[in-house]
Amino acid sequence: MLGRLNHVAIAVPDLAAAAATYRDTLGATVTAPQALPEHGVTVVFIELPNTKIELLEPLGTDSTIAGFLAKNPSGGMHHVCYEVEDILAARDQLKASGARVLGDGNPKIGAHGKPVLFLHPKDFAGTLVELEQV
Amino acid sequence: MLGRLNHVAIAVPDLAAAAATYRDTLGATVTAPQALPEHGVTVVFIELPNTKIELLEPLGTDSTIAGFLAKNPSGGMHHVCYEVEDILAARDQLKASGARVLGDGNPKIGAHGKPVLFLHPKDFAGTLVELEQV
Repeated sequence: MLGRLNHVAIAVPDLAAAAATYRDTLGATVTAPQALPEHGVTVVFIELPNTKIELLEPLGTDSTIAGFLAKNPSGGMHHVCYEVEDILAARDQLKASGARVLGDGNPKIGAHGKPVLFLHPKDFAGTLVELEQV
Repeated sequence: MLGRLNHVAIAVPDLAAAAATYRDTLGATVTAPQALPEHGVTVVFIELPNTKIELLEPLGTDSTIAGFLAKNPSGGMHHVCYEVEDILAARDQLKASGARVLGDGNPKIGAHGKPVLFLHPKDFAGTLVELEQV
């Protein structure tokens, strides 16, 4: 079922500072910030040769990552995103195996304009897992 | 400086259970467990088309990940590992920029038999960063 690692998401309290660290200190290619109000985040991508890192800063008052940053004020790894070919087939197979799909169980359009689902961290070794159909 | 994402490491309390989740529930290719007493861990690799996930279970009483699991009993994302071409040049450049290198500042031989260094999470948006020379 699992394809490529699409990205690792890191929640950060200060996107400009984190982007500068990756660009200036680590010498990585960093995209311009994109505000995604419908997801409650502003994102910057660190483009690596084989995958990308997504830096997330809360946007607005209802951001889903605000609670994470309250517990991890310096920031931290928030989720991993794996690619799947057929997200509905993946969802049905996961549900049949007892894994919990977050929200109403229907894919939403994610930050890359493609259908995504999130899986319960307690079912995946404490790691929030996003699946993205590619 | 940064090359490929070599791996994402996830610390887990029960390696057999986590490996089974990735193999059976997520349908990934999972390697056999390898005990690495000199690193205080037993590891399993999840082989993805573009990178890998390293599942880490504490081995022995002095495991460096025991403290992490005490704070995160279900497990969780522990570090990211980026590849660099010249680890000593990378280290010197990072130190000159004010970033903190963990331990005595000298590379050790990592789980893949190559020189590695770890960087202080507080200098990298709350994320423990490993550099591996490839």
